[in-house]
Amino acid sequence: MTHPQAISSSVEKQRQEFPGLTNKVYFNFGGQGTLPRAGLEAILDAHKFLQQQGPFSLKVNAWLEQKNCLLRQEIASELGVFPETITLTENVTAGCNIVLWGLEWQEGDRILMTDCEHPGIIAIVQEIARRFGVGIDICPILNTLNQGDPVAIIKEHLTPQTRLVVLSHLLWNTGQVLPLGDIVHVCHNYSDHPVQVLVDAAQSAGSLALNLPEIGVDFYAFTGHKWFCGPAGVGGLYIRPESFSSVHPTFIGWRGINMNAMGQPTGWKEDGRRFEVASSAYPQYEGLRAAIAVHRDWGTPEERYQQICQLSEYLWQGLSKIDGIQCLKNSPPEAGLVSFTINRDISHDKAVQELEKQGFFVRTIRDPNCIRACVHYFTLPAEIEQLIGAIGKII
Amino acid sequence: MTHPQAISSSVEKQRQEFPGLTNKVYFNFGGQGTLPRAGLEAILDAHKFLQQQGPFSLKVNAWLEQKNCLLRQEIASELGVFPETITLTENVTAGCNIVLWGLEWQEGDRILMTDCEHPGIIAIVQEIARRFGVGIDICPILNTLNQGDPVAIIKEHLTPQTRLVVLSHLLWNTGQVLPLGDIVHVCHNYSDHPVQVLVDAAQSAGSLALNLPEIGVDFYAFTGHKWFCGPAGVGGLYIRPESFSSVHPTFIGWRGINMNAMGQPTGWKEDGRRFEVASSAYPQYEGLRAAIAVHRDWGTPEERYQQICQLSEYLWQGLSKIDGIQCLKNSPPEAGLVSFTINRDISHDKAVQELEKQGFFVRTIRDPNCIRACVHYFTLPAEIEQLIGAIGKII
Repeated sequence: MTHPQAISSSVEKQRQEFPGLTNKVYFNFGGQGTLPRAGLEAILDAHKFLQQQGPFSLKVNAWLEQKNCLLRQEIASELGVFPETITLTENVTAGCNIVLWGLEWQEGDRILMTDCEHPGIIAIVQEIARRFGVGIDICPILNTLNQGDPVAIIKEHLTPQTRLVVLSHLLWNTGQVLPLGDIVHVCHNYSDHPVQVLVDAAQSAGSLALNLPEIGVDFYAFTGHKWFCGPAGVGGLYIRPESFSSVHPTFIGWRGINMNAMGQPTGWKEDGRRFEVASSAYPQYEGLRAAIAVHRDWGTPEERYQQICQLSEYLWQGLSKIDGIQCLKNSPPEAGLVSFTINRDISHDKAVQELEKQGFFVRTIRDPNCIRACVHYFTLPAEIEQLIGAIGKII
Repeated sequence: MTHPQAISSSVEKQRQEFPGLTNKVYFNFGGQGTLPRAGLEAILDAHKFLQQQGPFSLKVNAWLEQKNCLLRQEIASELGVFPETITLTENVTAGCNIVLWGLEWQEGDRILMTDCEHPGIIAIVQEIARRFGVGIDICPILNTLNQGDPVAIIKEHLTPQTRLVVLSHLLWNTGQVLPLGDIVHVCHNYSDHPVQVLVDAAQSAGSLALNLPEIGVDFYAFTGHKWFCGPAGVGGLYIRPESFSSVHPTFIGWRGINMNAMGQPTGWKEDGRRFEVASSAYPQYEGLRAAIAVHRDWGTPEERYQQICQLSEYLWQGLSKIDGIQCLKNSPPEAGLVSFTINRDISHDKAVQELEKQGFFVRTIRDPNCIRACVHYFTLPAEIEQLIGAIGKII
């Protein structure tokens, strides 16, 4: 492969926007992205505006409505969708909750999920199952990382009772990208009834180049604080227009309802705001919007994704060459997550602690037991080399 | 009454902590409180810490856990409860949703609410009613503002099917304080089955002096961004230990669950964290904690409440003297909200707009049709006099 040095000058410039990159070598973008300076400034400006013009006033209320609208637009543009399809949420889990609690479950319905989902999502599905008498099927996707066909496996596990498939677009543990378009196609065309698809997009939104209408996915829940590098506390949910009416609001508040002249609720808002609840950390909204703008200034989602892939391949190659390290994937990663095991006399926990002490930030994953390092489009090849060197030394 | 000038020097000093008070005359604390300088600094410091030590790292994760714990302690101390009884939420509405969706409804159950509840809460109850076949009773509390006994009215409206009473401690529209202890007593001792009580504490938390165990209330949902003067996006829910197990988690995430060595969910956390979901705007948590500390530096909850009452009486007296103004209450307010109507040829909307243009911040209420002005413990008598003068001029 080409050493990804070619576009290094534009990357060097971009990196100056991220104070979090200056004092460490950061590979935890899948946990939380580094907030750009412009993001922090936007947060601070919003706080100052609120105190100067309100915090509660006619002017501020109109301003918030306008800014929320701009954030929906900015996010929608990154996902290739219309702003009306976007619900702003606190995090990716909230988006999954909105869908899972909003569908009309019948006793005997079944949910199909993969064996690579996040514990928070598993816990929601388990409680849905308990409350509504819904069955859960788990299909073995983990083992398709290097061989096999995830689409075929999902197809095999659909049953006449399956109502919903819950899966991640980009698996948080192994870094595998699932062929979501094909999976959605299989689900929507399953025998005599279409099966809806809910995606945990925690790792994919902001890292993959996305065109959700083309993929056809019903529900895509994401967060702003990982690959978009926004502050924690802001995420969202895309609902495909054709699937909008299948979800009833569950957690409800004034942001989702229409009111009459007496202030009495008269029904739901007609767009994604229907599922929004009440007051949020609005300054953080401004932080996310500014962060997305910083990425867009550097390149398109496709350009960022290509750069991520080049860099993760470079990391994967380097790790693969170390004796005692095994990458889970036996071919270059399809996105920014690189998971590997250490086959030496040091636990993964201990290794991560040791690396953090030295200024290298990675994390452990419990299942499969491994370490995960994430590269973003602005990661430097030199940082990758340093990490590889540091890992080589501690094992 | 005594002119509340006596403690003015300590108030003057306290006001310097609030940048939002410097360029206007602010009476919208019931909408959102003015964030103290220390609150904004704590938010900024948290953001900087996250970027310096993470944002995702072993160190940051431990720090967040510790800080969340401190916030629960700080809030608990204000409510007279143990930290384990506190769930951190995004807002007051989220707290109400947790309880309303978490109880095990049976078809035919009934919810009793007052005719003074916030539209967001009404909308939740209506959807609960639709989904589970639950009935709704509304009792006329509005008309007890100046005469009559709210406790007796609630008692009359309880039925053998009533499972839950939903009401505000301090009514957001008229400013009436309901005798919550007596109401809870009546509900818990209703004929052969105790009826639980859920309180929308949007206006009471941070303004009334509270001892929740003494009151005996089951569920008390509040926000940090009104009378506590924290940033928007942080609130909480108190659940009485005896009522904890009656609520099942609905919106679920990694913050509320325990996990085994494989990262699989094994059950719920044993304290209020059970109902917390996932990533939040943690820097805002620090902002709320700092804001509460600022209030505590000035005085106890009881001292703050007494000062609020003195000031609201002063405002109520002044407004009552204006020809063309009628206060809804015909005796001094029991807290910081003063609602009044203008009986002249200017609409309430127009009056509020005109006042905001002149730097006076109040708001309209739809039902009953009125204007609401809120005083906090650090409001100045001089500000009250200016507002009264400004209102006198525009009508």
